[in-house]
Amino acid sequence: MLDQVHQDALAALVGPGGLITDPADRAAYETPARYAGGTAAAVMRPATTTQVSAVVGYCVRHGLRFTPQGANTGLAEGSTPDASGTHLVLSLDRLTGPLEIDPGDRTATVGGGVRLSTLNAALEPHGLFLPIDLGADPTLGGMAATNTGGARFLRYGDMRRHVLGLEVVLADAAGTVLQLSHGLRKDNAAVALRQLFVGGCGAFGIITQVTVEVHHRPRQTAAALLVPRDLDAVPPLLQAFEVEAGSTLTAFEGMSRAAMTRAIDHVPSLSNPFAGGVPDYAVLVELTRTWAPREGEAPLDEMLQQIAADLLERDDGLLIDALFGPVDRMWALRHALSEGLRASGPVVGFDLSFRRRDLARFRREAVLMLEADFPDYALCDFGHVADGGVHFNLVGPADKANDPERRAALREAVLTLAVDGFGASFSGEHGLGRAFQDAYDRFTPRLVQDYSAAVAAVFGTSSASVRLGPPTEIN
Amino acid sequence: MLDQVHQDALAALVGPGGLITDPADRAAYETPARYAGGTAAAVMRPATTTQVSAVVGYCVRHGLRFTPQGANTGLAEGSTPDASGTHLVLSLDRLTGPLEIDPGDRTATVGGGVRLSTLNAALEPHGLFLPIDLGADPTLGGMAATNTGGARFLRYGDMRRHVLGLEVVLADAAGTVLQLSHGLRKDNAAVALRQLFVGGCGAFGIITQVTVEVHHRPRQTAAALLVPRDLDAVPPLLQAFEVEAGSTLTAFEGMSRAAMTRAIDHVPSLSNPFAGGVPDYAVLVELTRTWAPREGEAPLDEMLQQIAADLLERDDGLLIDALFGPVDRMWALRHALSEGLRASGPVVGFDLSFRRRDLARFRREAVLMLEADFPDYALCDFGHVADGGVHFNLVGPADKANDPERRAALREAVLTLAVDGFGASFSGEHGLGRAFQDAYDRFTPRLVQDYSAAVAAVFGTSSASVRLGPPTEIN
Repeated sequence: MLDQVHQDALAALVGPGGLITDPADRAAYETPARYAGGTAAAVMRPATTTQVSAVVGYCVRHGLRFTPQGANTGLAEGSTPDASGTHLVLSLDRLTGPLEIDPGDRTATVGGGVRLSTLNAALEPHGLFLPIDLGADPTLGGMAATNTGGARFLRYGDMRRHVLGLEVVLADAAGTVLQLSHGLRKDNAAVALRQLFVGGCGAFGIITQVTVEVHHRPRQTAAALLVPRDLDAVPPLLQAFEVEAGSTLTAFEGMSRAAMTRAIDHVPSLSNPFAGGVPDYAVLVELTRTWAPREGEAPLDEMLQQIAADLLERDDGLLIDALFGPVDRMWALRHALSEGLRASGPVVGFDLSFRRRDLARFRREAVLMLEADFPDYALCDFGHVADGGVHFNLVGPADKANDPERRAALREAVLTLAVDGFGASFSGEHGLGRAFQDAYDRFTPRLVQDYSAAVAAVFGTSSASVRLGPPTEIN
Repeated sequence: MLDQVHQDALAALVGPGGLITDPADRAAYETPARYAGGTAAAVMRPATTTQVSAVVGYCVRHGLRFTPQGANTGLAEGSTPDASGTHLVLSLDRLTGPLEIDPGDRTATVGGGVRLSTLNAALEPHGLFLPIDLGADPTLGGMAATNTGGARFLRYGDMRRHVLGLEVVLADAAGTVLQLSHGLRKDNAAVALRQLFVGGCGAFGIITQVTVEVHHRPRQTAAALLVPRDLDAVPPLLQAFEVEAGSTLTAFEGMSRAAMTRAIDHVPSLSNPFAGGVPDYAVLVELTRTWAPREGEAPLDEMLQQIAADLLERDDGLLIDALFGPVDRMWALRHALSEGLRASGPVVGFDLSFRRRDLARFRREAVLMLEADFPDYALCDFGHVADGGVHFNLVGPADKANDPERRAALREAVLTLAVDGFGASFSGEHGLGRAFQDAYDRFTPRLVQDYSAAVAAVFGTSSASVRLGPPTEIN
């Protein structure tokens, strides 16, 4: 699909192995982890920032559309070409250098193509890690571009909080390389251009190098499964744990009965941790200390058990049961939820984000709406209660898996209730990819769209998979 | 100085008491806390966002320059008019509503003119606080506009980390009001326009409302004064405390002998805490727990003493002494440093920010440079070792207080070494005001300046006190 002249020119810019045109070799770059992929005209694999700059400049000058791609683990269709076969993929998978760690500084500087697992393996001997806890193994460039969150957001925050510096290549005719800060923790000597690239999903340029702050690894961890009286008991329980566990609280993950049941039924390696049957709702709570056990200090699991025991004894009856056990076993259920849902039927997934106070009320209203209008879809939600994130996932009947109109109606109904009704975000932690184009057009305020497009235009031709749209005349 | 037509029009827009032209009444708005002020043509005091929009639009349409002002506590000359008498001040001191607190959500939404002390007083009954620890009492709008840090950055981060939503008025002919997010902890449904306004110092618009995440107040605090062997011992001591105290470590503040001595000599309320004389360097370390003392858990001061005792016993000799006492008494020295310096002579102050690893090496090279070229200036530095921040303050002889050329040469020499030599920032946590115009022009990379100016231009006429400059042609 790619003109031979362009093919030769790009191949020369990236060197041997740097340009893939063969359909069989392209497949890995066209096939994302969890949604249907597209077709690429070719795959460019620059090995240095200079090569990224060269191919980006070439593409912009010749009007070739391209999509930047990290590890292709995203869920928002931000990293894959569409079905047209006319887009190129700009893979950063050869950009695996540098990989520099400064233990005293507690920072790491890595190429945009370095994987999270690679970084963490290199940090491990220093007792350090990047505490963004995900079910996938993305690249650092991709994590910055999507501003990923994760299950320990409550304690550590998102990728934005960890990015201390970026090197980016702008999608302009020159392939301009911008250095945005030098790994300083504090820097107010210029306006915050760097922040545009974090979560920008390629709208402002391609991230070729990332400096992150990293943390000391936990030395003690304890976890429990809590059974709250009902959904309304969850916010006060969270508040109680925030007060009693303070900065040792690292996860507070809510799971609905439907989600847990599907995991238990469909994931063979998982056993039911609940002796008395799966409850309507459960919360995985985790505490961690980064310091080793000290003399005179109760072990962390005792502290957790004491907090839970106090709550079980309270008159308010917010907590009705608590299960303790090895940390891995406690997390096993939470980690199996996605797999359980996918194994049980076609999933319509949402990555919603609410103010914490709205979580229970939204869920109640959504259940009523679903019962009335979509009774054939089962709500199997779970999420990060403490940061307001909800994977509001619905599993439909297998025979309706390919009914795009009904799926679209369901999406529209859920998003309208969440965004219009509760001021929620339709993309909590998965970034802004093509999967959200309709939601962006429909729900993002017109003024925000216009200014976003105008700012993106400052940085050159947009390389984002989501169209921010041509700016309308501002003022 | 203000044309009567404009005066009448602006007075009508802001209502009674909203426009100040009388020189005596203007003085408070022309006189900042710590530097020489300027002269305002008039002071506008809108009481609502609608009024802010109206006066901003009027000023832009009629070419009237204005400077937004919060509590006027800044140190970077970002909130005061220059000496020309032609600029208006746009004070947000009547924008003290709303003041809404949601304890379960752990968020507060306040008018841009609400003071930090007012917010914290309102949060106190809920056991909450905004943990940005400053020596001043700024407005929340000002704190967001300058992205303030503070003495507990190590644990809680800067203002950027806490801002969950902003309402801003753009400095354009329409006085456009933008709502940027709704207080969500996670939101990747749009590009991060909000981040431009945090630390933007008015370059993109005026902050009229702020939603912040707040935290549970500490329930236990312990502090100590540590005497390290020498400056090179400080980074490994910090690392040891990060490992041993983990998330309970909330401050690690370095103080030079010269700074401590001036505080002890010039602040009458302060007594010398060091029995054996003031050491060359000391570190104030603070641990906090947000949870109440639990059965079976050693008190926090015992934990701190144990960590220090272990370090004192170690063969490496990094720590040579440690003083314990009431938390207030431990902090008293640190809090008296600025006052001590100002009382001892004219101060040339710097708010530098380094990679942690560069702190000791920069100081050594700076001392050599100062001894050679500025022997009449005494280095009285102190700073936030854990975040790389240094208040690299120099006290000069009284008779040279008004030698602007020599002060400029000193500034140039220090900044050249710090920024060019070590990749430091010339504004760690004080924002980007007119005081840094020369540094911005000289040290901020040309490309970053150009893109910053182009992005600012998208949002209308700049209202910043620092000139980002007309963008040169990009590409």
